Order: sequence, then structure tokens, then C-alpha cells
Amino acid sequence: MKAVGTAPTGAAKKTKRSIIDTDIHLGAVGEEVLPYLPRVYREQIQTFGWRLPSQNAMYLNGAAHGVKQDEKLPRDNGSEGLIAYFAENHLDKYNIEHAILTGTGNYAAQTTPDCDYAAALCAAYNDYGIERMIARDSRIKSSIMIPKQDPLLAAKEIDRVGSHPGMVQVIVSNGAEKPYGHRFYHPIYEACVRNGIPFAIHVSMEGIGVNNPPTGAGHVNHYIEYRAARTQIMMAHLASLIFEGVFSKFPELKVVMIEAGMLWIAPYLWRLDQDWKALRSQTPWVKEAPSEYYRKHFRVTSQPIELPPSQALFAPMMEAIHAEHNLMFASDYPHWDFDSPTLAFPKMDHEVWDRIFYQNAAELYGLPQRKQDREAEED
Amino acid sequence: MKAVGTAPTGAAKKTKRSIIDTDIHLGAVGEEVLPYLPRVYREQIQTFGWRLPSQNAMYLNGAAHGVKQDEKLPRDNGSEGLIAYFAENHLDKYNIEHAILTGTGNYAAQTTPDCDYAAALCAAYNDYGIERMIARDSRIKSSIMIPKQDPLLAAKEIDRVGSHPGMVQVIVSNGAEKPYGHRFYHPIYEACVRNGIPFAIHVSMEGIGVNNPPTGAGHVNHYIEYRAARTQIMMAHLASLIFEGVFSKFPELKVVMIEAGMLWIAPYLWRLDQDWKALRSQTPWVKEAPSEYYRKHFRVTSQPIELPPSQALFAPMMEAIHAEHNLMFASDYPHWDFDSPTLAFPKMDHEVWDRIFYQNAAELYGLPQRKQDREAEED
Repeated sequence: MKAVGTAPTGAAKKTKRSIIDTDIHLGAVGEEVLPYLPRVYREQIQTFGWRLPSQNAMYLNGAAHGVKQDEKLPRDNGSEGLIAYFAENHLDKYNIEHAILTGTGNYAAQTTPDCDYAAALCAAYNDYGIERMIARDSRIKSSIMIPKQDPLLAAKEIDRVGSHPGMVQVIVSNGAEKPYGHRFYHPIYEACVRNGIPFAIHVSMEGIGVNNPPTGAGHVNHYIEYRAARTQIMMAHLASLIFEGVFSKFPELKVVMIEAGMLWIAPYLWRLDQDWKALRSQTPWVKEAPSEYYRKHFRVTSQPIELPPSQALFAPMMEAIHAEHNLMFASDYPHWDFDSPTLAFPKMDHEVWDRIFYQNAAELYGLPQRKQDREAEED
Repeated sequence: MKAVGTAPTGAAKKTKRSIIDTDIHLGAVGEEVLPYLPRVYREQIQTFGWRLPSQNAMYLNGAAHGVKQDEKLPRDNGSEGLIAYFAENHLDKYNIEHAILTGTGNYAAQTTPDCDYAAALCAAYNDYGIERMIARDSRIKSSIMIPKQDPLLAAKEIDRVGSHPGMVQVIVSNGAEKPYGHRFYHPIYEACVRNGIPFAIHVSMEGIGVNNPPTGAGHVNHYIEYRAARTQIMMAHLASLIFEGVFSKFPELKVVMIEAGMLWIAPYLWRLDQDWKALRSQTPWVKEAPSEYYRKHFRVTSQPIELPPSQALFAPMMEAIHAEHNLMFASDYPHWDFDSPTLAFPKMDHEVWDRIFYQNAAELYGLPQRKQDREAEED
């Protein structure tokens, strides 16, 4: 990684080079998804309600609806007005060339014990996202919601919509029934590889519905502890994916860790590498150090960034997590803990900035190079 | 913290200054504890066996009985021979002035659903430790095992043996039914403060018996993932103790985190501090930044040390965890991942070394200054 904090910033007040934003939410989907559901579920919902476990029924959030207070995002989901507002107030404002929606529906679908209902909801969310979001602005890409409670149904859904060019990854909540390395989930990875798309884990739904309590010591009481617990669960998934041999079985698989922080990865890998050296005879299918699997198979989104109080630690810690190649900028727009593309990071070398704000995501998701660069080449 | 890695090491091949070792295990206690149990439990054990959940029934370890391969520690627990061997091969060898046993019994006692049996076992372990270990070598100190499944019985046990000068802290397993900040456990902290001793959490029994599965995504498959999970649970306890307001209620309480690693604390506190700034209105009893609570109320033992691959990161990370004041050396003798007092740490400034290898523990546990220093003063 290039020296950070010395060269003039590439992220000045107005972003001159376009960027990719890898974590965006456009409202929880409600009634507008009903037309995309089979009649049996439409009728069940009309009779019994949505019948979905809720994170908000357990924990506070940082703001009403999780949205930053100055945000005027229309709440009429699925409308053209919503997309127009989003385009003007986020995509245009920050010169965002590709915007990755991390799910167009409600992660609660992944917490119900009813696998068939989960599958119907995920399919509806995906179709809705394709028609009402992706189709309305070519900058918008989205993620495939899957009924992960039933990995075979999940694989079927990946095969159904995985070839859509606007669907760039499979997405699951961080809250889970089992750590994601478990063989229970392997049909999902087979489908990801078959469709050439990454598997993304996004913090959400920890301890909700069928998922395990959010910490290895059980349920927590406050939202701030809940947020802290999310990192812990992502740690468990990271170790599980490596030590269960997922990457020996699926060498092309890439995994994206979204919204769980980033700098924790450094000491965690130091520890895993040490333990692997001592204990590798117990998991002989793990051929390389855990940090190598991380480097080759994982990508991380930036928000929420842990900023060390001493600026001197930031650059070496960025290097320790291989930020230049493994980190992708994310704003988490429009949530209350939104990271502005122009303010979130300390100054950094332009080449590193370019990889974090564009190239790493473009390579991972197979997105084209910047329009301005392509046009310059064609001239 | 003083510059680290520049001054000549104080931890040369032969330790000249005496040290305190804060994490030592002298064998799992078996039949030798029977005489310390009430007749009803002696008879139950004779009839039904020990009836205790077992970590070894779930996970591998790094070595048979967890002990390093070159270790010849006698297995006749409670014998004078064991203490003599330990004195010669650990205390004398490394010039250890105070040795803290982290429990003289089996943490499995803290995993049974039978609270009364747990209480009887813990009392037996404590009496056994006092008579057969502490009494046999004045360097040996020990930790009070408590039936944490029943905090009122636990408080009673703390009051029973807490005034013994050789019992320097209360100890619980990291595996838990609830995060330790929960008000369920507050009678234990009241008793700790009343007896002027710290509350120590030692990795063990995660996901065993009544405890929660070891990660927020459920059970893990391999021992190496299990070790990784231990850090995650310690993170949950740390956040819980702060955000549940334990230190507002018990301002004198000190908490020791044993064998869960150390450098993870830095990025974890960066994140907690940031989130607290944004969310502190939700937990108004948390008056200061989480890093301040850590600095004032927590102490950490060193083994297993995460060593960054780049030596340049070690000193600033040590500073970030306030190692000079919050870290205490631990060997974890005689376990397979033992850290030698003379080899475990990179070179460091003598003053920092002195705090980590002696003063921090002496202050926490109220132990006397080094004999050699006291004698020098008396001269």
C-alpha cells in the first residue's frame, strides 16, 4: 500500500472522479411488493399481517426508521419519485457511477421459520428491485435476497435471477442460524460460483427470529451493545468460512463483509494466523494462512470506519487489512451513521483512494471502468 | 507509554527482576476434592459420576490434557510433589514472586444447571486450593470459584473465603448464560467490592452446559474457531459491563480479562467510543467514553499475545490498549500455548516491562513490592 496521509487528497470537497458506493438502502419495502407475491401469500398477509420477526421490536436504532435526520428521502417506496430523489441527492451529488443496493426488501424475510414464505418474499423483493429500481436508473445495481433458511431454495433463486446484469451479488443478513462456513450453506456457494457473483454478508437481524442470540453470551440489552455484537458475529463467519474449507471447495468464491467495521480485521487475522500455525493439523484442508484466504477471498466495505484517536495508527492499520486491495467505500446512505464520500476518510494517496473508491468494487462486481476514462480512450 | 523496542530488554534469558504470573493452571481437580464435599454430593458422585458438562466432549485441544508436550507436571493433584515440581520448574525457573492460579477446580462446575451442586463444588475447590496449594508455597495465590448460575449463592461464597489473603480475585468462565453486565450478576459485584477483590473472566466453557453457543451465529465446528470465538465473547462482556452501567453502580469494581488476547481491544474501543458519542443519550448512566471505563476498570492478561507481522505496529498497538497500565503478564503455564516470561514479548523499555511484569498486578491484587526492593529499603 502506498504511503497514506502524505499526498494531497483525491477526495476533495467535490468529488472529481466518479466513485462506486457499495452499501445503499432505499427504504424497507411494504405493501408495494404485494403484486409480486403469489396469491396464497397475498391472502395470508391480508388476513394475518406480515408475520415477520422484527429487529425494531427488540432494539432501538440511531434515528427514526434508521434514517439521518436531514434526509428527505420519499417514503413512497417503488415510486419514480423515490428514484429521482435518490439520483439527485446521492448519485449526482457525489458523482456515483455505480450504486450497490444491499437488498431491496426486508432482511426479516431471512428470519422467519417458514422457508417457503421466505422464498416467496425474496423472489418478490428481487423482481420488485429489478423492475422498480434497477430498471429506472442504469447506475443502480442490487443484491439477490435469498431464503437462506433453505439453501436449496436459495440456490434456485440465485439461478433464477443471478444472470441479470443489475444483480451483482447474493446477500444475507449477518444474523444467522449457523456460522456461514457450515456445509449446510454450501449449495448457496455452489450457486454463487455458477453465476459468477460474490456472497455478501450484511449486518442485520442478529438474534432475531430463527437466528442465534447476537453474542456468544446471549442477548444484549442496548442498541450500542447490539452494534458491537455485529462485529463479533462477522468474526465468527470469517473464521468459519476459512476453517470449514469453503475456499478449498469453492476456490472462485468471493465473500463481502458489509457494515461490520474494518480495522478489527487486523488483530483478528494476527491471532488466526498464529493459531493456524500451531493447530493446522486439525484442519488440513486449510492450506494457507487465514490472512491469505482473507486477502484472496474477502472484500470489506468501509462504513462504519473505526478511526483510531491517533492518526499515526490509521495508515499502518489500513495496510494491515490490505485496504488497497480489499476495502471498498460504502456510505450506508441514507442511514443515520452515513459516511460521506468526501469526509469519511482521512487524506490518502490518490492511487489508494482510487482502488477503495472505485477499482476494488469494479473488479469484484465486474463493473465497467469509469465512463470518463472509457470516453478518453475512445478519443 | 515509553518508547518500546528501543531500550535494552529487561527480559533477558534469565529474568533478573522477579515477576508476577497472572494465569496459571495446576491440573483439573478430580477425586482429591471429594473429602471437601458434603456427604450428599460424595454419594451422588459415587453413584452417578461427576455429572458435569465437558468442553473436551465438544472440542479438541492443542495437546493432550491441554498441556505442553515437554511438561512433566505430576498428575497426582493436591500432592506435595505437584507443588514442589511447580515451584522448581516454574516459580524458581522464572523468578516468579507471586503466581496467580486462575481457579483450583474445574470450570465445568459453572456449567451445570444444578446451582446447589455448583455451589458445593466451588466451595470444595476453594477449600482444597487454600489447604493444598496456597498453604504449601507462599508465592501461590488463587481465585475464588463461584456458582455464577446463582449470583446470591455466589456472593455468599465470596463472603466466605474472600478475606483469605491468598484468594486474590473472583473468577468465572467466559462462557456464560448472559453477558456479565446484566443485572442478574450484580450481587456478585457487590460482594467483590465488599471484599475488595477484582472480578476475573477466564476463557473456558463457551457453549458448554447451560452457557450460550460460543458465537452469535451458533456453535462452531473446530477448536481453532472455538478459540477465535472466545475473543468475541470477551468483547460482548466488555461492552455489557460498560453499557449496563456496572461501573456507575460499583465504581470501585475492577474486571480482569484473562486469556482472550489483547490487541483486539484497540479497534474495539475505537468503535465503542464512536458509537457512544452518537448514541450516549440511550445509555445516560454511561458518563464517560468506553475507553475511559476500560482504562479505569479493566485489566488484561497477556497470553495469548497477538503479534503483528510488522514489528512497527506492536508498540503503537500496545499504547492503544494502555498496556503500560492495563496489561499484566500471564504465562498460562502449563498449557500448550504457554508464553515464556523471557521470550513472549518483543524487547521493550524497562519501565514498561516492570509495570506489565510486576507493578500492574501488584497494584490490582494488593500484593507487596518485590522482596529484593523491600530488603534494599530496609538496609
